[in-house]
Amino acid sequence: MKKLAYVDNPEEWVNQFSFYIPIKVRFSETDMFGHMNNTAPFVYFEEARIEFMKSYGMLKDVSSKAESVPVVADLQCDFHQQVYFDDHLKLYVKVESMGRTSYDVHYMAMNQNENVCLTGRGRIVHINPQTGKPVEIAQEIKDQLVTV
Amino acid sequence: MKKLAYVDNPEEWVNQFSFYIPIKVRFSETDMFGHMNNTAPFVYFEEARIEFMKSYGMLKDVSSKAESVPVVADLQCDFHQQVYFDDHLKLYVKVESMGRTSYDVHYMAMNQNENVCLTGRGRIVHINPQTGKPVEIAQEIKDQLVTV
Amino acid sequence: MKKLAYVDNPEEWVNQFSFYIPIKVRFSETDMFGHMNNTAPFVYFEEARIEFMKSYGMLKDVSSKAESVPVVADLQCDFHQQVYFDDHLKLYVKVESMGRTSYDVHYMAMNQNENVCLTGRGRIVHINPQTGKPVEIAQEIKDQLVTV
Amino acid sequence: MKKLAYVDNPEEWVNQFSFYIPIKVRFSETDMFGHMNNTAPFVYFEEARIEFMKSYGMLKDVSSKAESVPVVADLQCDFHQQVYFDDHLKLYVKVESMGRTSYDVHYMAMNQNENVCLTGRGRIVHINPQTGKPVEIAQEIKDQLVTV
Repeated sequence: MKKLAYVDNPEEWVNQFSFYIPIKVRFSETDMFGHMNNTAPFVYFEEARIEFMKSYGMLKDVSSKAESVPVVADLQCDFHQQVYFDDHLKLYVKVESMGRTSYDVHYMAMNQNENVCLTGRGRIVHINPQTGKPVEIAQEIKDQLVTV
Repeated sequence: MKKLAYVDNPEEWVNQFSFYIPIKVRFSETDMFGHMNNTAPFVYFEEARIEFMKSYGMLKDVSSKAESVPVVADLQCDFHQQVYFDDHLKLYVKVESMGRTSYDVHYMAMNQNENVCLTGRGRIVHINPQTGKPVEIAQEIKDQLVTV
Repeated sequence: MKKLAYVDNPEEWVNQFSFYIPIKVRFSETDMFGHMNNTAPFVYFEEARIEFMKSYGMLKDVSSKAESVPVVADLQCDFHQQVYFDDHLKLYVKVESMGRTSYDVHYMAMNQNENVCLTGRGRIVHINPQTGKPVEIAQEIKDQLVTV
Repeated sequence: MKKLAYVDNPEEWVNQFSFYIPIKVRFSETDMFGHMNNTAPFVYFEEARIEFMKSYGMLKDVSSKAESVPVVADLQCDFHQQVYFDDHLKLYVKVESMGRTSYDVHYMAMNQNENVCLTGRGRIVHINPQTGKPVEIAQEIKDQLVTV
């Protein structure tokens, strides 16, 4: 795995993941270069992040009447190995660090040959959907989410 | 152009289009067969349909508080010629027939060589976003929309 | 279920499906109307169709060097019920009728409440990727595919 | 504009952009939170990057027989302001730094109110599509591409 600005100790970083969802690369997610298009991982990241949050009882209300909704402040992906149609990925997620109104989510995708093919991270901010302002995250959610 | 169940007189049908939007086929809309993926035309149809409606002063309010929103009841596309990355299409739209709460929208895409490569149609129903029930379309909108 | 031009006997038609894949509606597949965007079913149809074909040993070679590749000649979808984020669908597929170089694939999606929310169909043609010409489908594949 | 690891001098950085393409946010690119889904910018980045390259005479051959094809090594996006359906963006691109086989592409999107709503960057590597190995970029291309 190449050197990543968001990873201090690669071995430790990899081992701290435990939650994952299975992803099968769809035909419509490939492009004419014959591999997965570079926009697909961000779809996978979102799905994995949401399932992770749901597993902690979050995101019960995702309507515009919700008190707070999670929005993406930034997002990045490193492509370590080519990914192809029908590859079966394990898309791992963890919360790496927690602030007052936001937290850092880290991602890692492992293919069927146990190779890390994608890694990434991104900041999630909780905002009030009416005002657009950041909302403090409840302590009980914080305590749960940070697994590292 | 092959025989289409939704077209009686092909020559007349083609000539009745006048509104169109330009579409450039994106790289991310191709697939590993080297051409435009078959899911892309439905994205183009939606964009063209919305621009068509906007040109008639519709769709000013697309929020969940709107009195009525247009939803797709059915949608179909015929693929007449292969479409490739970077093809420049003219995506034509017209309203073919008008009912009390719904209307039929027809589509035609012509490529840079003036060949018809995609055709399609689909029923749009106006519903109340709160109740989900069909809403009658105002006579003044009906009078405007049907151009054929 | 509303009347569909491609279904003669609805009860019989529904019962003839047996193969399906699970689909979970992704957040990125919703739109600002708060439901699944109308372009998403065509992505699901493609995934289901490919898994169906793979279950019959087809699509082993999907490269540009393959002797024949399946392409979509036309595609349509009827929206029977609203579909929402996180709905769990069973996406059923069957081959309805078989020609010399093409066949008709039918689709049905049932949600977690056992309601039929989407139906559809589309013609698949096998073509030679070099010449673009239709290729006759082998009798052994024909015998397998038509399940109705 | 918030502080970005990939921008030393924000004012200078913004002023060094000149090439851009227009982007209109599609309805199908929104999500149920009522704004542009976070996966859409990466589609815009790709389209802008390709148009930028084409404007320099690159990407004439994007087939699998090409001597080299550009692939994404990493990609990131910062979301500075909410982006909505039908926003008209100017998507700016520039090459920030050039290596032997790869270069850094920077992105900035400005909305119709002249606010910077998205920024980003990503490394592009030129590889041989047969071998997957990095390919040295011709000096004449290097000389053209680096505009800063």
